[in-house]
Parts: sequence; structure tokens; C-alpha cells
Amino acid sequence: MKNGMELALCEAQNAAQRGEVPVGAVLLGPDGTVLAQAGNRVEELHDPSAHAEMLVMRAATAARGGKRLADCTLVVTLEPCPMCAAALAHFRVGRVLFGAYDPKGGGVEHGPRLPFRAEALHRPEIIGGVRERDSAALLKTFFQTLRERESEASSAL
Amino acid sequence: MKNGMELALCEAQNAAQRGEVPVGAVLLGPDGTVLAQAGNRVEELHDPSAHAEMLVMRAATAARGGKRLADCTLVVTLEPCPMCAAALAHFRVGRVLFGAYDPKGGGVEHGPRLPFRAEALHRPEIIGGVRERDSAALLKTFFQTLRERESEASSAL
Repeated sequence: MKNGMELALCEAQNAAQRGEVPVGAVLLGPDGTVLAQAGNRVEELHDPSAHAEMLVMRAATAARGGKRLADCTLVVTLEPCPMCAAALAHFRVGRVLFGAYDPKGGGVEHGPRLPFRAEALHRPEIIGGVRERDSAALLKTFFQTLRERESEASSAL
Repeated sequence: MKNGMELALCEAQNAAQRGEVPVGAVLLGPDGTVLAQAGNRVEELHDPSAHAEMLVMRAATAARGGKRLADCTLVVTLEPCPMCAAALAHFRVGRVLFGAYDPKGGGVEHGPRLPFRAEALHRPEIIGGVRERDSAALLKTFFQTLRERESEASSAL
């Protein structure tokens, strides 16, 4: 059986296949059951907030009839952005495992470091760098391919 | 015809009627047309991210086939929280008008002040305090009623 990060990496790969930035997430219940899993669906849904983390937090909370996620673990292949980092508090996520660090766009260990701010009303346990190289490799390949395609397209003009 | 903030205040009042924290939002297109309007639906949707701002940004972007909101104005009765403040950048919202300031929970003029951070990739024009007293009065009444009900319920035990 695949563990949470392996599942999240699969979701990230599937997202890349759909032309989405390859980030995947899984929401694990208190006993480790998968409550929700998703990859980015920003392009598909025409929704810039449809990050993998938001999708699994929303799906898991809805499935639990609104019960917040204090006893759950969010597993995601990339350090959450400030929007998702702030949402962790609204959903009361108990624990976060993330893959690659994101010095430019991250909001947990970088930028505003939202869960660690004095006014934060909820602070999940946070573990970063899980399968970091695999997550980062997916993103690197995706953006490299994108740049190559763009360069081919512009030279064909 | 009602202006944007009047419509947003109506949405906030309707939200209170549904037992939601009374915050309302409207998304105005470049010519002032209402692209979307909504009140908080956190309780109804079992979705802690279903803030009025998120709902109108998502609805307006979907209606425009994914086109971001750089030429649009978000009108909301309360200073956006950090989640919504961070989402402004993902949706590339051009302008934000908000009502009451939120020193405890706001993320625009308070707390992390996300749009003003050095690493912010997008900074909307921001105007706060529009119909401030009306917005704040709605919230005050809502929480006062809630506390009175809770106190009645506990004294009835």
C-alpha cells in the first residue's frame, strides 16, 4: 500500500499530465485512512484557488459534515503558499507534511511564515522536506518542458 | 440602483439570516457590472474556506473562463483575512474596497499585511473603511445576539 506522500506524488504526476503545475495532496484521517486526495486543478476548474491543499481540505471537511481537521494530517508535495497556509488555521489542520521547500512562493517556512506568527490562532505540527527531491524533480521537469515548448513555439513564428 | 457596497451589505445581512458570520462581497467588472455576489457560506457548505470573498472571486473567474480579475473590483464588508488577502494575488484582483477594519483577524491592513510584503507578486489598489460603521454594526449585533443566546441556553440548564 502506498503511504501518504507516495499518493500525493502520484496526484502531482497526474496533475502534470493534465497540464497543471504538479502539486498533489492527500488528507489522512486520525487512523491514517485517506479522506481525500487531489492534484492542482487551477486550469481545469478555471479557479486560481483550486490548489491541491485547498481541494483536499474542503473535500475532507465536507465529508465529515463540517468537522474540522484537528485530528488529521495534510500531506502535500510542495510547501503551501500563503493562501493555503492561512487556510490551515480555518480548517484547524492538526499536522502538515510537505515535500519541497518553496523559498519564493511558500508561506509556511518562507515569506510570511503564517503558522508561526504571534497572532496565529492555530498552529499545526509541521514537517517539511519529506521526499523533497522527488517533489522538486517533478516541478523542475514540468517547468523545463514548459519553457522548451514556449521557446519552440516562439522560434516557429 | 444599489452600489457595490450596498449590495455587499445586503449579502452580509442575508448571511446573518442564515446563521453565518455577516460578511458579504460583490465582484464588479471593468464597467461596474456585478459579476458575482455572495455572503459567507461556511456553515451551509461545511467549508471553512467559503468566505464571501473567495466565493465571488471563484464565481467571477469561472464566469470569465479563467480570465483573472486585474480589471475588476472586489467589494467586501470586512477587511479580508490572510487566506482571502493571499488569494487576491492568485486571482490578480485589481482593486479592493472593504468596509470594517479587522485588527484581530485581518490580513490586509493588519497582521501579515500580505499585499504590502516585499515578496508580493501582485498588489491590488486597496481602499478600506467604506461604510465602515454599517459593516461593523452588522457584525457587532450578530455576535451580541449569539452571546445572549448562548448565555440563555447555559442558564436554562
